[in-house]
Amino acid sequence: MNSKKSSTTDALKWTGTQLQVLDQRVLPEEIRYDNYHDAQGVTEAITSMRVRGAPAIGIAAAYGVVLSVMVHYSENNPNWQQQVKEDIKQLSDSRPTAVNLFWALETMQKTLDAEKGNPIAILETLARKIHSDDIAANHKMGELGAQLLTEAKGVMTHCNAGALATGGYGTALGVIRSAYQQGLRKIYAGETRPWLQGARLTVWELAQEGIASTLIADSAAAWLMKSGAIDWIIVGADRIAANGDVANKIGTYSLSVLAKQHGVKVMVVAPTSTIDWAMTHGEQIEIEQRQAKELLNECYLNDDSLVDAWNPVFDVTPAHLISAIITERGVVLNPAEQNGVRCLQ
Amino acid sequence: MNSKKSSTTDALKWTGTQLQVLDQRVLPEEIRYDNYHDAQGVTEAITSMRVRGAPAIGIAAAYGVVLSVMVHYSENNPNWQQQVKEDIKQLSDSRPTAVNLFWALETMQKTLDAEKGNPIAILETLARKIHSDDIAANHKMGELGAQLLTEAKGVMTHCNAGALATGGYGTALGVIRSAYQQGLRKIYAGETRPWLQGARLTVWELAQEGIASTLIADSAAAWLMKSGAIDWIIVGADRIAANGDVANKIGTYSLSVLAKQHGVKVMVVAPTSTIDWAMTHGEQIEIEQRQAKELLNECYLNDDSLVDAWNPVFDVTPAHLISAIITERGVVLNPAEQNGVRCLQ
Repeated sequence: MNSKKSSTTDALKWTGTQLQVLDQRVLPEEIRYDNYHDAQGVTEAITSMRVRGAPAIGIAAAYGVVLSVMVHYSENNPNWQQQVKEDIKQLSDSRPTAVNLFWALETMQKTLDAEKGNPIAILETLARKIHSDDIAANHKMGELGAQLLTEAKGVMTHCNAGALATGGYGTALGVIRSAYQQGLRKIYAGETRPWLQGARLTVWELAQEGIASTLIADSAAAWLMKSGAIDWIIVGADRIAANGDVANKIGTYSLSVLAKQHGVKVMVVAPTSTIDWAMTHGEQIEIEQRQAKELLNECYLNDDSLVDAWNPVFDVTPAHLISAIITERGVVLNPAEQNGVRCLQ
Repeated sequence: MNSKKSSTTDALKWTGTQLQVLDQRVLPEEIRYDNYHDAQGVTEAITSMRVRGAPAIGIAAAYGVVLSVMVHYSENNPNWQQQVKEDIKQLSDSRPTAVNLFWALETMQKTLDAEKGNPIAILETLARKIHSDDIAANHKMGELGAQLLTEAKGVMTHCNAGALATGGYGTALGVIRSAYQQGLRKIYAGETRPWLQGARLTVWELAQEGIASTLIADSAAAWLMKSGAIDWIIVGADRIAANGDVANKIGTYSLSVLAKQHGVKVMVVAPTSTIDWAMTHGEQIEIEQRQAKELLNECYLNDDSLVDAWNPVFDVTPAHLISAIITERGVVLNPAEQNGVRCLQ
C-alpha cells in the first residue's frame, strides 16, 4: 500500500481499477491527472512524458501490467497470457534508457509466470509493493545522503529527481528534503533543457513543500561552481552500470566534469532497481535520442531545412567523477575505487 | 561607408537621418526593423536587446551620438554640448559588460571635443567608419581564424557572434563562414539560454547563407565533445582583458573548461576594440546580471515566491583555457603563454 498521504506532487495514483497520471507536461501552470485503464494507455503516458523519471516509469509500468491482466484475464479467454505478453512488450519499448522500467516488468513477469490461477490480486499487490518500496527506499536514501551534507553551504540539482520522478519523496530531491530539515538552505536547480524539468518541475516541487530554491541556466553551472556557492551536485540516475558509471539526464556528465575541476562533489541517488548488473560499463547503455522538435523552432521542421538538432536526452558519467552513490542498501563512496557498486549486489 | 551590400542579416542600417535596427527579439519568426531618430531611442534599442552583440552595440551607440548632435546641435542652442553629453552618458549606461560600447563612445567624444564648428558631418563620417572598419575587421579575422581550421572535422559556436552581433559578416561566425568556404561542414550551435541566441539567431543566420548547422542543448556540449565530433569551440567576446582573459556569453567559461578536458581547442574572435587595456585581469570585468524573469515561469514572479533565479549573462574565461585569440591585427596563440594580448597594443 502506498504509505504516503496523497499530495499535489504525486506523479501516480492507483485507485484499484485505474492509474491516475499527473500530466507533467503542463506543470506548473496546470495540475491535471489523466486516467488510464489499460496498458496501451500507460505506454502512451510514458512515451509522451506525462510521467517521467526512472523510478516513476518503473512503477507506472508495473501498474500497466496489472491493468493488462485486468483487461485480458478471463477463464474463457485462452489467449490472455499472450495478450498480456504483448502489452508487456509494448510497455518495455516505451523508453530505452531507464532500467527501472525493465526491472519492474521482469519482476511482474516472474510473478505472473509463477501464478497458475487468477493473477489479478497477486499482481496488484506486487505493483503496490513496488510503489511503496520505492517510497521507503527514497526516505532511506534521503537520510543516508543528508548525512554527507551536514557541512554543505549549498547544493545544485539537475533535471527532476523528486517525488514527481519516483513513487514519492524523491531520490536527489529526497536527499535535499532531508538536508533541508537539518538546515541546508542554498539549493540551486538547473533549468534542464530541452524539457525544462528543473525550471518546470523541481523548483515547483520544492516550493510545494515550502523550500526555497534558485533557478539557473544550465550553462551557468560552471560559473556558479567557480563562485564557491555549492559543494555538491546531487542527481538521480536512469541506469547505473556495475562499475559505477551512471546514465542520467543530458548535462549530468557536463556537470560532473565541471565539478571535478572546481572541487565540487557529485552525489548520485538511486534505488538499487536502477542498477543494471548485466552492464559492466556505462558505455553499453543505450542513450535515447529524442525528436529535433524539442529544440528547433517550428520554421526548421520542414524536410529541406538547413537546420537540424542533435538531441540525446541522457549521457553517461564515468564512475571516477562520482564521489558517492546513495542507494537504499547503503552508500558507495568513490565507486571507481570500490569495484563500482558490486558491493551492493 | 558601409562596404557590405544590404542583406537580411544586417543588424543595423544607417539611412543618413535615422538608424534602422533589426529587432532580434522577434527572430526568426519575424524580420522587422525599428527606426530611431535620437539617442534615447538607440539607448532603448540596446537595453531592450533589439540589438545585441558587443561590436553591434558599439556601432549602434556611435550612430546614437550622431543622432544626438543632429537633434541638439544648433548655432542658437548654447546648451547643445551639455545635452549631447547627457545622451552619451545615457548610451554608456545601457549595458555594462561589452567594452566596444565605451570604446565607440570615447572615440566619438574625442572627435566631438576637437571639432569647433558644426560636428554633424564629421561625426557621421566617423560612425560610418566605425561601422565599415568593423566589417573589414571581421573579414580579416575570418581569414585568419579559418587558417587554423584547415584540419577541423567539426566546430561548435555559442551565442551569436555573427553578422547580427557586428557591423556585418561576424566574428566567430565570420571565421566559420570563411572555414565553410574552404570545406568545413560540421557546425554545431548551442541554444544559449536564456535568450536563445544560438537557437534563434545563429542557426537562422547560417541558413540565410545556405550553411547547414546542428543545434544542441547547452548541456549536451560535453557529451558532443566526448563523441569526438568537434575540434574547436569558436566564440566572440564582450571584453578581453590585457592578460587574455575573456568575458563572453554565460556558458563560454563552462565550454572552455570542458574543452580543455576533452582535447578540444577554444578560439576567441574579436576586434581589438573589444580589448580593455585598462583591465589587467578578467576578474575586474563587471558581469551583467539580468532579470530573473528571463528564466522563471510567470507564476514565480510575485514578491513572496519561493523560487528566484540567478541570471548572470556573461562569464569570464581565463586565458589559460584559450588556444587562440583572433583579432584584425593578428592572432595570439596560447595567450596565457604570451603575456596576454599585449603584443597587439
